[in-house]
Formats: sequence, C-alpha cells, structure tokens
Amino acid sequence: MVRVGIVGASGYTGGELARILALHPETELCVATSRQYAGKKMSDVYPHLAGIADIVCEDLKIDDLVGRADLFFTAVPHQTAMALVPSILEAGKKVVDLSADFRIDDPVVYEEWYQAHTAKQYLDEAVYGLPELNRDRIAGSRLVANPGCYPTSIILALAPLLKKGWVKLDTIIADSKSGTSGAGRSAQVNSLFCEVTDGFRAYKVAQHRHTPEIEQELSKLAGSKLTISFTPHLLPISRGILSTVYASLVDGVDPGELAPLYDEFYRNEKFVRVCPPGVFPATQYVRGSNYCDIAFKYDPRTGRIILLSAIDNLVKGAAGQAVQNMNLVCGFAESLGLETVPLFP
Amino acid sequence: MVRVGIVGASGYTGGELARILALHPETELCVATSRQYAGKKMSDVYPHLAGIADIVCEDLKIDDLVGRADLFFTAVPHQTAMALVPSILEAGKKVVDLSADFRIDDPVVYEEWYQAHTAKQYLDEAVYGLPELNRDRIAGSRLVANPGCYPTSIILALAPLLKKGWVKLDTIIADSKSGTSGAGRSAQVNSLFCEVTDGFRAYKVAQHRHTPEIEQELSKLAGSKLTISFTPHLLPISRGILSTVYASLVDGVDPGELAPLYDEFYRNEKFVRVCPPGVFPATQYVRGSNYCDIAFKYDPRTGRIILLSAIDNLVKGAAGQAVQNMNLVCGFAESLGLETVPLFP
Amino acid sequence: MVRVGIVGASGYTGGELARILALHPETELCVATSRQYAGKKMSDVYPHLAGIADIVCEDLKIDDLVGRADLFFTAVPHQTAMALVPSILEAGKKVVDLSADFRIDDPVVYEEWYQAHTAKQYLDEAVYGLPELNRDRIAGSRLVANPGCYPTSIILALAPLLKKGWVKLDTIIADSKSGTSGAGRSAQVNSLFCEVTDGFRAYKVAQHRHTPEIEQELSKLAGSKLTISFTPHLLPISRGILSTVYASLVDGVDPGELAPLYDEFYRNEKFVRVCPPGVFPATQYVRGSNYCDIAFKYDPRTGRIILLSAIDNLVKGAAGQAVQNMNLVCGFAESLGLETVPLFP
Amino acid sequence: MVRVGIVGASGYTGGELARILALHPETELCVATSRQYAGKKMSDVYPHLAGIADIVCEDLKIDDLVGRADLFFTAVPHQTAMALVPSILEAGKKVVDLSADFRIDDPVVYEEWYQAHTAKQYLDEAVYGLPELNRDRIAGSRLVANPGCYPTSIILALAPLLKKGWVKLDTIIADSKSGTSGAGRSAQVNSLFCEVTDGFRAYKVAQHRHTPEIEQELSKLAGSKLTISFTPHLLPISRGILSTVYASLVDGVDPGELAPLYDEFYRNEKFVRVCPPGVFPATQYVRGSNYCDIAFKYDPRTGRIILLSAIDNLVKGAAGQAVQNMNLVCGFAESLGLETVPLFP
Repeated sequence: MVRVGIVGASGYTGGELARILALHPETELCVATSRQYAGKKMSDVYPHLAGIADIVCEDLKIDDLVGRADLFFTAVPHQTAMALVPSILEAGKKVVDLSADFRIDDPVVYEEWYQAHTAKQYLDEAVYGLPELNRDRIAGSRLVANPGCYPTSIILALAPLLKKGWVKLDTIIADSKSGTSGAGRSAQVNSLFCEVTDGFRAYKVAQHRHTPEIEQELSKLAGSKLTISFTPHLLPISRGILSTVYASLVDGVDPGELAPLYDEFYRNEKFVRVCPPGVFPATQYVRGSNYCDIAFKYDPRTGRIILLSAIDNLVKGAAGQAVQNMNLVCGFAESLGLETVPLFP
Repeated sequence: MVRVGIVGASGYTGGELARILALHPETELCVATSRQYAGKKMSDVYPHLAGIADIVCEDLKIDDLVGRADLFFTAVPHQTAMALVPSILEAGKKVVDLSADFRIDDPVVYEEWYQAHTAKQYLDEAVYGLPELNRDRIAGSRLVANPGCYPTSIILALAPLLKKGWVKLDTIIADSKSGTSGAGRSAQVNSLFCEVTDGFRAYKVAQHRHTPEIEQELSKLAGSKLTISFTPHLLPISRGILSTVYASLVDGVDPGELAPLYDEFYRNEKFVRVCPPGVFPATQYVRGSNYCDIAFKYDPRTGRIILLSAIDNLVKGAAGQAVQNMNLVCGFAESLGLETVPLFP
Repeated sequence: MVRVGIVGASGYTGGELARILALHPETELCVATSRQYAGKKMSDVYPHLAGIADIVCEDLKIDDLVGRADLFFTAVPHQTAMALVPSILEAGKKVVDLSADFRIDDPVVYEEWYQAHTAKQYLDEAVYGLPELNRDRIAGSRLVANPGCYPTSIILALAPLLKKGWVKLDTIIADSKSGTSGAGRSAQVNSLFCEVTDGFRAYKVAQHRHTPEIEQELSKLAGSKLTISFTPHLLPISRGILSTVYASLVDGVDPGELAPLYDEFYRNEKFVRVCPPGVFPATQYVRGSNYCDIAFKYDPRTGRIILLSAIDNLVKGAAGQAVQNMNLVCGFAESLGLETVPLFP
Repeated sequence: MVRVGIVGASGYTGGELARILALHPETELCVATSRQYAGKKMSDVYPHLAGIADIVCEDLKIDDLVGRADLFFTAVPHQTAMALVPSILEAGKKVVDLSADFRIDDPVVYEEWYQAHTAKQYLDEAVYGLPELNRDRIAGSRLVANPGCYPTSIILALAPLLKKGWVKLDTIIADSKSGTSGAGRSAQVNSLFCEVTDGFRAYKVAQHRHTPEIEQELSKLAGSKLTISFTPHLLPISRGILSTVYASLVDGVDPGELAPLYDEFYRNEKFVRVCPPGVFPATQYVRGSNYCDIAFKYDPRTGRIILLSAIDNLVKGAAGQAVQNMNLVCGFAESLGLETVPLFP
C-alpha cells in the first residue's frame, strides 16, 4: 500500500484524483491540501464524494507535508509547483506533477511562454509522462511531468506518423476543442454557466502555452524541430477534448499503409482505441475514462490526412494519466484503478 | 460465475447494464438481444463500449434464448416483457424485469393504467425490487420487478416518514424532474436535442403511469391506501431525477425527530446518503452511480416537510438497481460491481 | 422621445434592458452606470451588443446621474436600490426599480426577510408593477416596483382562481424552476458552467426571499391572508422559469368552468397566452420574449388543480416587464418595443 | 405588401422564416406547406409561434400553390427543390431557394456530390445569394440560390484576403463547428438530446457536400481554381456556426495591412461585424440575429493567418439571409425585418 498525497485537492483535477484513487486497491490517500478549503472535508467541497473521500483538507507547510506520504500529486498552478517539488524530492519522496513546470526541457523556452524558472536543476531528470511513448523512463523516475490535456490528445494522434516520417513537418495544424473543466474551478465571469452554455468560441489564438510543449514532443518524435499552428476552443461541455489535426503526407506514402500503421502502433495499448474505419471519436464516448480514441481520414483531393482524437481532459488529460504514471513509478499494473467504463449517455 | 443475458440490449438501459456488468466480477454476459441491431456488436451500437462489450446482438426466439443464460434482465417495454417472462421462468431461469409489467400487484389497477395483462399468474410471486425495503423477499425470489425510476426516488424519500405514520396521507405531492434518457433511445421529435436543450417542461400531468406504482408502495408503507399528486418534468440533462416531495406532518410530530429518524433508517444502507443539514441533493452528485441522495427541510410556517431526493435514473433508477437485485437473488454481496464513484463535473 | 438611464447596466438584467431599449422607438438610452466596468462600452461588456449599444458605462454619483435622464431603471441589488431611489424621485424623475426594495408593502415583513429599510416613506406610493393586474395604478405612478421573476410566474398562474375564490387558501404549493441567469453575472463557484450543466438541484428551500412577495400579492387577490410553500430550483439553462403550482379546489367548483375562466381573464392580454387543452408551456417557447404561457389540469383523483406557467426570467421576469411598466408610465402603447417573437430552437 | 409563401414550413428553417416574417412590415405570409403537418397551424407545430403565426399548413400540389403568393421560399431538401422551382418560375413568381440545388454552377460538379440534376436550364440564371458579395445581381434576379450555412461563414471570412490575392491558395483549411439545428427536425437517433449533449464530434470528414460550394465561391474570389480541406463538427448547441479558417499568407504581405483591409471591406456592411483586436467571435453573440462576426490573428511563427467567423446557422446561415435576399429582390431596404438584436445570455 503506497501512501499518496494530493497537493491542491480542491480543484477539478484534485477532485478527480480523489475519485480515481478511492477505488485504487494499492494506495491510501493520506493527505489532501487546500488553502481555500482547509478544515473542510473533500466531501464538503465535492458532495459527490460523500462517503467516498471524507478526508479533511489541510493548509500545510511543506515541512509538515512531506512526511505524510510517499508519493505526491501536485495539482497546483505552474509556478506554485516549482516552489514545492524540490522540497518533496529532497525529502526522498516521489512526485507526479500536473502543472507545466517540468514539461519543457529547455528553460529558455519555458521562460519565454511562462515566467522565470526557479527549479531548473530538476528539468533534466523530469520525465514527460506520456506512458504510451515513455513507459520505460517513467517507470524509473521520481519526478514525472504529467502532460497537458491538449498535448496528450495531439501527440497521441500524430505519434505513429511522425515516427515514420510520413508528414511534411511545416504543415501541421491542430484545431482543438475543450470542455470547460479545463478552465478550473476558480470563480471567474468567463466560466459562468450563462457565458458558456449554448455557445462556442476560440481563445488564446496562436498564443496558448501548450504550444511549445506540443512542439517539443512532436519534434522529438519527428527527429527534427517543427512548428505548428494550435488553436484552442471552449466547448459547452464539462469534460472532453477533441483535437482535429491536419497534415500533408510526404510524397510517396501509400494511404493504404495508414490503417496498418495505427493498428500496429496502438494494438497493445490498453488506453488507446483506434476507431474502426468510418467511425470518428466523440468526447462523450470517452467521458470519465482514461481512453484516447483516435481516427483518421486521408483526403486524396488535398493530399492531407485529417486526424481526430478524443480524451476526457480530466482523466487521460490529467488525473487518470497521473495515476497511470504513478502505477508505472510504483511498479503496479499500469491500468490499476483505471478500468472505469466511459459513461454514456 | 453466473451467466446473464440482456433482453433489449440496445436501449439506454441495456447499454447501461452492459456498462455495469463489464466490471462485475461474478457474472458473464452471454447473450444480448436486439431486433433492430441484430448482427451488430454492442460496441457498434454504443461506441463507448469498444473493447469492453463487444458481444454481438442477436434477434432470438424465446426458445433459443432461454438456454443461453441463468438470469435475464428484460429491458424491454411493458407488454413485451409479459410475453417473454413466463417462458424464461418456465425454463427454470431467473428474471429481473425492468418493465412495469410485474410491478403492480392488482391486475385491475394495471389494466386501468396500461393494457390487458397476459401473465397475471406471476403477479403474486413477483417481488417489488427496492432492496432497501424488500431485501429479504428479493433474495429468495426468481422474478424481481425492478422499480420505476420516479417511484424509486419518491418511495425512498418518504419511506421513513410513512412507516412512522408521521404524514397526513392526503397531502402528498411529488414534483419530479427527469433527464431525457428516461425517454429512451427511440427516434422521436420530442427527444431531439434542439427540442430539449435550454428548455424545461412538464408532461403527462396528472396521468403518468408511474402514479399507481408509487401509490401502491407508499400505501404499503403507510398501512393505508393513499392517493398522491405526481407531476413529471423533462430536464435538459441526460441522466438524473430529482424529486421534490411535499407533505404535511401530522399534529404532534416533533420536527427535531426528523434527522434522527432518517439517520437511523438509512445509516446502514450503502446506496442511500442522507445529506448533512443545509445541503441539498443534486443530480450531478449521483451521476453514473447507484446512490440515492436524500435531504429534507421542515417549514414551520406551513407545517409541511419538503423532501428532496436525487438518483441517476439509469443506475439506481434502472440498471444499477437491477444489478443490486441480481446480487441479492444470486447471493452476492449486494454492492458487487456497483462501487462506482459519481462522476462530477 | 423619453431619455432613459440604466443604473447597474453590466448585470444580465442591465444587458437585457439595453437589448430591448435598442429597438424601442420612443426612448433614448442616455446613461448607463456600472462601477465595475466604468469607462467600457456596453458592447465591450456584452459583445452581442456591438454596433447596437455602444454607450460607455460610467460610475456616477447620484447628483451627476439624475440630470441625465427622465426615467431610470434601477437594476441593482436590494439595499443598493433604496439608497438611490429617493434622490431620483426628489429630482423629479421616474423610476422603475427592479430590486426587491419597494415590492413589500409592510416594512416589518421586508425587514424580516431582508434587512433594515431606509426609504420606508416611499413604500406607500410604490406600485407593484404587474401590468396585467395593476395596469391603471402603474400608469399614474412615478415609482414602479418591478416584480420578482418567480412571483410573476406564480401570481399570473393563480390570479384568475384566487379572484374567484375557487381554491383552498392553505393548500397552495409553488414548485419553481429557474434558469441560471437569475443568479446574476457575479463570479461565484456555484454559478460556474461545470457546477450547473447536466445537473439540477433545489436551493433556499422554504426560505427564499420571494416568498413574502408572492404571499402578499396572492393574499390581495384572495382578499385574505395566505401562506404558501415555495421551492426554487436551478435549471441548467440560461433563461426561463417554469412554475408548477398545486392547489385544492374548494368544494362545488365545476372543473368545466376553469377553461372559460382563464380564457376570459387573459383573452385581451397581449403577453399572456393560455395554452390549448393538452398543451403545456415550456420555457423554450417563451425564450427571449415577454410572454407568460399558462396551462392547467384538473385532477379528479385528488381534487387538485395543477397550474403550469412559463416566462423568460430576464424578459417578463425582469427587463421586459420593466419596459412594459415604463410604457404605461410614459403613456406609450403597452407593448411598444416588446413585440419580439420567442426564439426557438 | 408582397405575398410570400414558405414551401416546407415545418422544418427548423421554415419555422425560422415564419418567425422573421412575422415582424416584416412589407410582407404577408399567405401560404405555408407541409406534408407531414398538413391541417395543423404553424403554432401547433411550433408553440413558440402561438398568436404570431397561426397560419394553417397545407399539402399542396404545385398548381394550387403557385397562385397563392408572389415570392416563395423553398425550404425543402435538395432534389425536392429542383422539382418545384421550375413550375414556380414558369408561373411568373420569384424564388429564394434554400436548398443546394441551384448553388453549384457546373452540373457536372453538382452531380458528383449530389445526384442527377433535373433543372439544369436554370443554373445559369440562378444567383448565389450572398448579398455582401453579389448584391447587385441578386437585386435583379428571380431565382436566388441561398448559400449553405457553412459556406456563408467561410466565404465571408476569406473574401477580403482572396480578392487581394494575399493567401497561398493550396493552404486553406476550414475547421467548422455547427449547432444541431443544422441537422433539421427529422427524428433520427443521431440527433437525440442524449446523443448530442455534453459531447462533440466531427462528421462527414473530407466528404461534406458543402465543400464544392465553398470551393466554387472562393475560386471566383481568388480568380483561380482552388481546393480546400473542410471538416464539419457537431456542437451541443441549437444554433450557431463557428468556422476557424487557416491559410498561409503569400510572401511580402504586410500583416499590418490586414486590419485596414477588413475594416474597409466590411465597414458599410450592416450584417458583418469585424471584432476589435483581441476579441474573438462567439456563436452566442450572434444568436438569433443576422450578423456574421469576424476576427483574425496573424501568427508570425508559422506565417499563417487564423480567421474566426460566427453566424447563427438558422439566420445568416439560412432564413435571415433568405429574407435579406428577398429584400433585395423586392427592392426593400436590405435589412428590413432583420434588425433583431442577438439574444445573450
């Protein structure tokens, strides 16, 4: 039994971690921190967890925190994470960090898109926690940088093609649409029900901070530095990301080879489902689960491939993937506690 | 390992049964019938079940069906169920029937609200499958009449009060609101997205067929025949029922006794959560789970008690309760396979 | 051309007033105040108004405000309104107040449900602005207390019956469901998209502040003091209130007389539509309009009448009714600027 | 006063035409046809129109139809339209056709994407009814081919750039998202509330029939034949289309010239609103109105421009634009009857 802690338990990702861990047979949730809700039970903050996660949230100093668990999920904003993680590691504990602070290898790039980095010394050892691509390195790590939600959906869609070198690297466009839980639980007018429902919009066009993260990982897969267009949009749903990705195939690729490629690449992956021909993913078919559903269509009129990929942003895009990473780090079966069936309708 | 079959697998309740049974450790789904989708996999009908329930739907004659499993869930419309159930029972198999056909004890009442009954000989032995009230009888039964969704929410809310005789029996009003999955998956204009979303309405005012079922069970609890007002409404959500129930307390009841009454009545019930004072149930807090959340408020200005109860109509209101009943019938732990945590947000 | 001002222009009601007034042929919007958005155009605050209401919001002292228009809509919270209204009236201007501050005749009752009242001297002359009932008094008034959204829907539903004395006064229950815009545009966790969507709950059970307002007006209609049960619920829609009202008929009332009663009572009312038999109102059928749709059903099993009434809470429940009152006060045709057709789907 | 008829009045577009025409001061709705709802009032089919459009739907032979109005809106599916339009024209009447049948100039292209064309002789004189681009030709026409909803949003976004020759023609990608009313009011499982709500998906990837229409009109603007990628998606909202359009600028274009270009191009257009810098369109800000809101962002990292455009698919994407076209054909002010303010929230 591994003792785990959630730092930042009152956000949607924290709540989702508590939901998943409640049924995980090899962990015990020993500490949950929240400044805002200190003294309240998780089930006061999230009534759906009544009788399931009644642990009391605490506002802890780092020194009081580190002794309480063996592995910590840091579900706090970037910049806050980098202030905590070093102390946890120095205390000999493990971290799955759900912020952006340890995802970008190059501190110069990080500081361009975020702000100054105060824990650069850990960037080298942090492992980008996409198990389908980095399984082995994650297993041996003590600091996992859990991927962003958008990057997860886009990288998994493109990985087989990029590894093969089958797409023209300057033609990649990712048009992504996310549910509103991605904006977190903070009280702001833009996230009010009446502002979001029955509507749709783009935001942070050509300047979303997930862009360098996506480019970094895609570049690694391609073996060559690339630049993409990435446009996030806000969907009037709670959970789910659908990414529509466009790329031109390099000359000479046989479109008939695409299906075998994806089949082979993901055949043994528990959490990636390649859709049958003619079926396209939908966010409602992965709701509440750790699946990433992927489909593609080659368009001979334009020479482009159109990729579709769907995840639940709070699960495969955050808490579920974090638990998948924890399973690897702790030597558990990778899917332990993550066998939930998607909830539809 | 019990072999189970789902008759009527392509409706929302059938899909939900498949979702729940997929993780049930003591059952094997051996047959799934659907006339409309015969020859298709469950995961073609419901893509969220890809890799989880890939069983092929069949259009079976009853004689070919009965040998294929030990226990059947009949998730078909009323009238269709009564045509199938006798043959299944005669073949020595067990049935959890999700239709209305075996819920009403008195065939005269049934025929008043529905149509002619052709299997009256089984009404006596059918057990009304509300485990919190009828646990023992269910355990020994071979024909369980799974309760309606609205009745489940209303009966559980009122049961403690009625057993005590604390309400005036002619003052009960149940104002219920249901998600749209209650209307099933059949293609009809009234259930189209554009007709339902961003809207709200009542339907079948003073003439919904769940009325006699509710009255029958409440009358049993009260030990006296009673009549209620019941108004169903259609919510622009997929899942969930919230019932708001009004009743006048009989003279002399001490409102301070209400909290202890509910606490004691439901303290040991796994699937009933009585909300802390000041907290009211919400459908989103039981989404995807088998919980029934209950709260109440006494209003000294009017002498009325207002009860609120929330369930997921597809789980505690249908498939989940059916599995709970199956667990009792089969001698499994009552909550086996039903430990899902509600999905929020 | 009447010069009008909106005090509190940045809330949803303020935005809705701007939307309606934009097409009103006899008014000119001369001033719009907002502390939070001072210096911003209405169309910055509400991009749907771009090119339609580009007036700049100001943060004005009352002395600078009163000279800028002839009639003011005070769309501010209770307590704030009572601090402004006296100065506006003393400057010789007219007020349609959308807060609760001048709706309750009896200051003792007001102070029981709200807080201390600092402008009691105006309570006597304030007219309760429900045009269908108080048309003549409104026309001659300089201070109109615009009704609450819930009260509008409930009072219009019951008025014909109460005036006739056809219901037992101690049996009235109003179960109301409102869209989320009723909670205003302030940033609070409870109103976030993810908290509200795909869900439903009751709130302020047996203690909502609209209760005394409803009771006051119903009592006037009945000619006798009465007490009701009123339960508000939160719908996952932006706009719309549906009230389901229950009451027992007094002995001897012929249910066949109900249809003629409602027909006659509302036949000449532009903004009240009595549904044909068998048709029930839906919030989506009044969306964006000033209509109140009403239906009823007598249930011979219980002796109760069930009334349904639907309004758009921002229009007939707030801004639209306020303009209707302004039309009366200013001597315009009562429906001027309010002829919008409901928006469906 | 022009006598108008709606052929196919019971679909969502038909209902929307009735809504708009109800307030149009220079037209009289003289005939509304519907096979399915013949004998029913429009307000039975669409209760929101009660008291507003009580005209009775008829199932008319073409010969009985043509005499009943001077101008017809044919709001029927493709193939049905081409069977009706010739007879209407031959009777000396005018047509605004909302189907696809007269939008494609080249019958070979039409037959590739649709089916055989039986009224090719009218293709030459049919005018593509996008008033912002073809105002003069529409004014003199008797057969207007009302544009598709997706094409309207995409063409208006790209028109200024293409006319200037500022984009590389083989780089255009249109990623569009539509509300569910675009699927019409026919009863099909895919359009059920529970299938659509809280979800998102792409459909008809690389094979939607609006593709040749979009390419035809963009090619005319560019003066050169071009091919695009177009991906439609289904939003869980009733109304609204948002198109995100990507294109690479040709070398030498000064990004600083983009704002003046759009400003000048649309400055005098009543129904196109170019958003201020930093503001992006949202479907909810054009809901119920005839506006097309447009914004763009140049991304120096990739050399691409990202265009966003939002319309209400039932208004600017169908019925509103049809009335705009009718106004031109009839010599009315182009915006007559279309001055509705968007409904938000």
